[in-house]
Amino acid sequence: MAKPFRIGMIGYGFMGKAHSNAYRRVGNFFDLDFDVQLKAICARTAENAQEFADTWGYESVETDWRKLLERDDIDAVDICVPNNLHKEIALAAADAGKIILCEKPLAMNTAEGEEMCQAVERAGIANMVWYNYRRVPAVTFAKKLIDAGKLGKIFHYRANFLQDWTISEELPQGGNALWRLDVAAAGSGVTGDLLAHCIDTALWLNGGITDVNAMTETFVKERMHNLTGKVEPVGIDDACTFMCHFKNASLGLFESTRYARGHKALYTLEINGEHASLKWDLHDLHRLDLFDHQDDGTVRGWRSIHVTDGEHPYMDRWWVPGLQIGYEHTFVHQVADFLQDYAAGNPTTPSFRDALETQKVCDAVLSSAQSRQWTDVQ
Amino acid sequence: MAKPFRIGMIGYGFMGKAHSNAYRRVGNFFDLDFDVQLKAICARTAENAQEFADTWGYESVETDWRKLLERDDIDAVDICVPNNLHKEIALAAADAGKIILCEKPLAMNTAEGEEMCQAVERAGIANMVWYNYRRVPAVTFAKKLIDAGKLGKIFHYRANFLQDWTISEELPQGGNALWRLDVAAAGSGVTGDLLAHCIDTALWLNGGITDVNAMTETFVKERMHNLTGKVEPVGIDDACTFMCHFKNASLGLFESTRYARGHKALYTLEINGEHASLKWDLHDLHRLDLFDHQDDGTVRGWRSIHVTDGEHPYMDRWWVPGLQIGYEHTFVHQVADFLQDYAAGNPTTPSFRDALETQKVCDAVLSSAQSRQWTDVQ
Amino acid sequence: MAKPFRIGMIGYGFMGKAHSNAYRRVGNFFDLDFDVQLKAICARTAENAQEFADTWGYESVETDWRKLLERDDIDAVDICVPNNLHKEIALAAADAGKIILCEKPLAMNTAEGEEMCQAVERAGIANMVWYNYRRVPAVTFAKKLIDAGKLGKIFHYRANFLQDWTISEELPQGGNALWRLDVAAAGSGVTGDLLAHCIDTALWLNGGITDVNAMTETFVKERMHNLTGKVEPVGIDDACTFMCHFKNASLGLFESTRYARGHKALYTLEINGEHASLKWDLHDLHRLDLFDHQDDGTVRGWRSIHVTDGEHPYMDRWWVPGLQIGYEHTFVHQVADFLQDYAAGNPTTPSFRDALETQKVCDAVLSSAQSRQWTDVQ
Amino acid sequence: MAKPFRIGMIGYGFMGKAHSNAYRRVGNFFDLDFDVQLKAICARTAENAQEFADTWGYESVETDWRKLLERDDIDAVDICVPNNLHKEIALAAADAGKIILCEKPLAMNTAEGEEMCQAVERAGIANMVWYNYRRVPAVTFAKKLIDAGKLGKIFHYRANFLQDWTISEELPQGGNALWRLDVAAAGSGVTGDLLAHCIDTALWLNGGITDVNAMTETFVKERMHNLTGKVEPVGIDDACTFMCHFKNASLGLFESTRYARGHKALYTLEINGEHASLKWDLHDLHRLDLFDHQDDGTVRGWRSIHVTDGEHPYMDRWWVPGLQIGYEHTFVHQVADFLQDYAAGNPTTPSFRDALETQKVCDAVLSSAQSRQWTDVQ
Repeated sequence: MAKPFRIGMIGYGFMGKAHSNAYRRVGNFFDLDFDVQLKAICARTAENAQEFADTWGYESVETDWRKLLERDDIDAVDICVPNNLHKEIALAAADAGKIILCEKPLAMNTAEGEEMCQAVERAGIANMVWYNYRRVPAVTFAKKLIDAGKLGKIFHYRANFLQDWTISEELPQGGNALWRLDVAAAGSGVTGDLLAHCIDTALWLNGGITDVNAMTETFVKERMHNLTGKVEPVGIDDACTFMCHFKNASLGLFESTRYARGHKALYTLEINGEHASLKWDLHDLHRLDLFDHQDDGTVRGWRSIHVTDGEHPYMDRWWVPGLQIGYEHTFVHQVADFLQDYAAGNPTTPSFRDALETQKVCDAVLSSAQSRQWTDVQ
Repeated sequence: MAKPFRIGMIGYGFMGKAHSNAYRRVGNFFDLDFDVQLKAICARTAENAQEFADTWGYESVETDWRKLLERDDIDAVDICVPNNLHKEIALAAADAGKIILCEKPLAMNTAEGEEMCQAVERAGIANMVWYNYRRVPAVTFAKKLIDAGKLGKIFHYRANFLQDWTISEELPQGGNALWRLDVAAAGSGVTGDLLAHCIDTALWLNGGITDVNAMTETFVKERMHNLTGKVEPVGIDDACTFMCHFKNASLGLFESTRYARGHKALYTLEINGEHASLKWDLHDLHRLDLFDHQDDGTVRGWRSIHVTDGEHPYMDRWWVPGLQIGYEHTFVHQVADFLQDYAAGNPTTPSFRDALETQKVCDAVLSSAQSRQWTDVQ
Repeated sequence: MAKPFRIGMIGYGFMGKAHSNAYRRVGNFFDLDFDVQLKAICARTAENAQEFADTWGYESVETDWRKLLERDDIDAVDICVPNNLHKEIALAAADAGKIILCEKPLAMNTAEGEEMCQAVERAGIANMVWYNYRRVPAVTFAKKLIDAGKLGKIFHYRANFLQDWTISEELPQGGNALWRLDVAAAGSGVTGDLLAHCIDTALWLNGGITDVNAMTETFVKERMHNLTGKVEPVGIDDACTFMCHFKNASLGLFESTRYARGHKALYTLEINGEHASLKWDLHDLHRLDLFDHQDDGTVRGWRSIHVTDGEHPYMDRWWVPGLQIGYEHTFVHQVADFLQDYAAGNPTTPSFRDALETQKVCDAVLSSAQSRQWTDVQ
Repeated sequence: MAKPFRIGMIGYGFMGKAHSNAYRRVGNFFDLDFDVQLKAICARTAENAQEFADTWGYESVETDWRKLLERDDIDAVDICVPNNLHKEIALAAADAGKIILCEKPLAMNTAEGEEMCQAVERAGIANMVWYNYRRVPAVTFAKKLIDAGKLGKIFHYRANFLQDWTISEELPQGGNALWRLDVAAAGSGVTGDLLAHCIDTALWLNGGITDVNAMTETFVKERMHNLTGKVEPVGIDDACTFMCHFKNASLGLFESTRYARGHKALYTLEINGEHASLKWDLHDLHRLDLFDHQDDGTVRGWRSIHVTDGEHPYMDRWWVPGLQIGYEHTFVHQVADFLQDYAAGNPTTPSFRDALETQKVCDAVLSSAQSRQWTDVQ
């Protein structure tokens, strides 16, 4: 008989929707020891909370997250609020002994993140950060190929995350849907929002980064601020590029921008090894490209692998070969993996501590961009 | 307050799973007048029924579909059984006054289909056939572009549905997962299974077909039969190709096979008009390719449209631009559309009568392949 | 010391240019026993002939092809005139003992072609037809893979040749650049012009065709005729589709049209075998796509082979890996192969007799389209 | 009547072949005031020179380039020798009053390049550097679109040149075909060989670069040296990445390596502007990808333009739409443009002075990699 796993969600924006969908679906596709129950949704206004609860089937609403943490019928809290609120909630949740599932990036900076890590470790509670792209089947499969030694010694790792949605100068900053443009809420621009994903995947696939050298730019210097009603300076990075060295002696190159006209959410990665190379991109996330040098010379070529077979990671849970899944499934996979780890008493990945490594790279990147110097990752 | 819409599902295979998922998800993403309730699942053995009910949350199980039809707490039956059982169940369901949602193809042949159409029309009940590919956002968008006159006069329509999963002679026929290879259960091979999809989309996008000329082949002539335990002749078509004329004077070309090594479920379509052409394929279903001759001459080219923007059909219900959806969403869309039509008292498409048109083309195709003659669609 | 190989070219249009370029270049890239010399160009007007001679370095001009055939300083004639003139010139050239290199299609029909074959065989002269696409390195490489058994038993062969240049009703027919639209000069439309290429490649890669079933269409029924100055009926096929059986029991499907908006010269072919499949297209002719089922299951995918390595056919003669060649190189390869065969005293392919096989299929296709019946290839 | 343009070529390697081919072909495809004549080829050994002369039709051979410069029957010298010999020959050629066509990069460094510029300018002789990729029709077309304002304000420019041919540690350095691995002959590794191309194109398309920040790596530290017969340290950069700022305030990102398994010669570039973006890659050089934000929102997508129409740059000289050209044609175009400029008395591009700008960026890149600092371009 499945035990209940009772969720209290804090925040109800885009990520709240993505996580709620995952909670509701996971049991239909994965065999779990737990029955996920949506106990409560917390938002600042009761009306917004209730509307979300009605859509997603949350049993109750709260308007104060501290109240949520006090409830006995909640096993885990899901932190889906802007970055500047992560730390305070996480520390309180750890004190309350709640399991914590926290949106990425972990925190506003490494110092905050370190506090959060210590809190959950001290409390001995399960914890996870939603770096969902590790659970794209094609990316998980890439990890398997790399770990199996298919690529050999690695020479290069590169990743881009290109968007174009902030080019207009008319776009304001701040407030509900636009808090990502407000440095007070987001901490940084593309670095924490987009590059953090690229870095998390890179650390997972290719190991640690030792030092970085970065360049940032803010193309639009001032925008109307939704919270103050005035034109205010823009404090975030609109674009960020960095070079780095990995511990395995490979070279890294990362770029992110919201000013690449024509790209909606083009997260691409490529890794070049002695024996083989891999490429992937989020715009067609169900495909992985592989070049295998060990193929016979005349028939070598980049293979486009349609990662939809039963033998591919997670895909035995879904449909049949050739029928693709999409973005939202990555969250379902992450919940499934978390619950399986939790049932077995194992830590899950990425934990707060894993996510802190990404935070350290982000901090080094932003510091390097400011100092214009190579900067060691702490 | 949402009214209940109470489903009784008959069959629990791949399509039962796809439909159940749609029923469970539609309310999270679409605003509906109805609250979809999964009342009962019917399968021949209680054990299978119960397992499916546990996974998907059906409230009860039945082992006799006639019992299901007698229940007062069921508004609609979903027929997800092999083709040879569609007619009998549908006629009884119509007599019982149930709404019917029937898997495709409608029937074993046109005669059966005509009976079914008359039954639902006589009973005055809402009815629908699950030709789900009309609800791929990129395909729905193609329909909009065509209807808006973007392509002008049409010259060519072509579609392929290529698979490779039956190449091995060791594969048996008949029984649960392999009834599609058993002519007694399926009626035909690729024609009813795959070409029926291509034909349905074609009739929707390009109008009626007047006459056809077909070639079929059965590459593996005998296979072990799971039901008889003996090697039996294979009665289905492994491959089917046909040429045709449309009522709008364009030429059609269709091919389907399960012997195209390298293609898992490659349903592709292309339509060439005077002013523009469109291409789509199921392996990357979130993209539509458009060539627009009215673009300036030097910059003309095939555009790869990532159909994930809020302005694209259905996509305002899902995530943000660049984040793709997959196969299963087509069923969600079809349920949503059906319920909106039903709430408004409008017939939905494709209805039984719409699906009968596809049946007529399939019959003409199979007849032409046998007679080796051009054959008019009745 | 290289022996002279003295060319007399009849015709100076697009193909005259492509062949002349091949003659001039072949010696720079291939080691040959012969020194190709451009002796004479023959055109109906001296002015046109002279201009072409000046551009390409022909030593002399003729305005009467019979005069050309009488000259002792000509070893080989290259027939680059419209199809309706092939036979007369070829018969006379055979009588004159000249080597003949003839543009495709061989003739207006099989009867003419048979006469031509008998003439060159009786005269014992070397002969070749310019089906140049056999010499695209990627296509030649496909032939090697097929001959080596890489694909195993073949199930399907399909080819398309799609263009869009005759959609406008304002385009006239007949005369210099537009003789391909004039049935009196061309014999047929897309069948002899485009499908003939597809058929030649198919016969080479997949063996003989036994019977065909075709559909043709003429979308624009009347066009101004450049020779008569009047609107005249259009006698050619604008589009032609056919199904067929190959001698190896595989199924064939061919389509050609000049009304596929968005395609300039999209000749594509695909062959599906038990073990592997191949795809190629003329718009990116330096690539071959291969799906190899014998790859490990999880990493199977279509490989895009950039056919530019030294181990690939012909490519050791050109540049370095990654640097592509283009359309015109196919003619250079054909001249090189012809001269090597000729030096060795071997027949070359495709010979007149080889090209006659394509002619027979074309005739069966056109006959089938008219009779609306399956038609055996003679 | 065409005037003679008499070439003396120094060097006979890969580039000697590419240039010779261009000289021999240009007159067949372009209307020129000049008749290009291949007067002499100079190589250190008479045998090599004679073999090359026989293949390409050079009238005579020299084994001392100083002799070549003394000859009165030579109008222009083409310098196709390793980089470390460019300066000495160019200075002498300028003294001798010869037109100079010099392979890229211009020189070993900026100081040498400056001397060479001053020499040709003092002598008042026509001069050109073979940055041939400007003359890929798709790249030339990109330049036209940018100059016409199609892209608006530019935000990002990125370029990669990825190869994989030096991964094996067994590969020696130095000597004929491998001088590019020998720092004494080449001056640098991928920076001067590959990035120089990317930089030249970037300066042409996007204007000047102000400052750079680079990282280089030498993966294989020692290789057998063909000239000394001993294992020697490798002095070149195997990989080089740099970030930069352009004068127009856009950000640049460049990477080159010979350790990207799977890429033969993948030179890619992308430019993101306010209104539109462009992408191109050398592996399919006949295509240009364009995203135009001014297209109607729902049908926006990346267009793949097959740059083979008569309206595209240079393409009216070649075949018909859909028939692609290749690598070697870029050299033909460059010769044609040079001769047209020369006939008109205009300077051609890129001149020595233009190429010096690329040299300055290369020097800044190498200096930055060493100092680990942002470095201004002089």
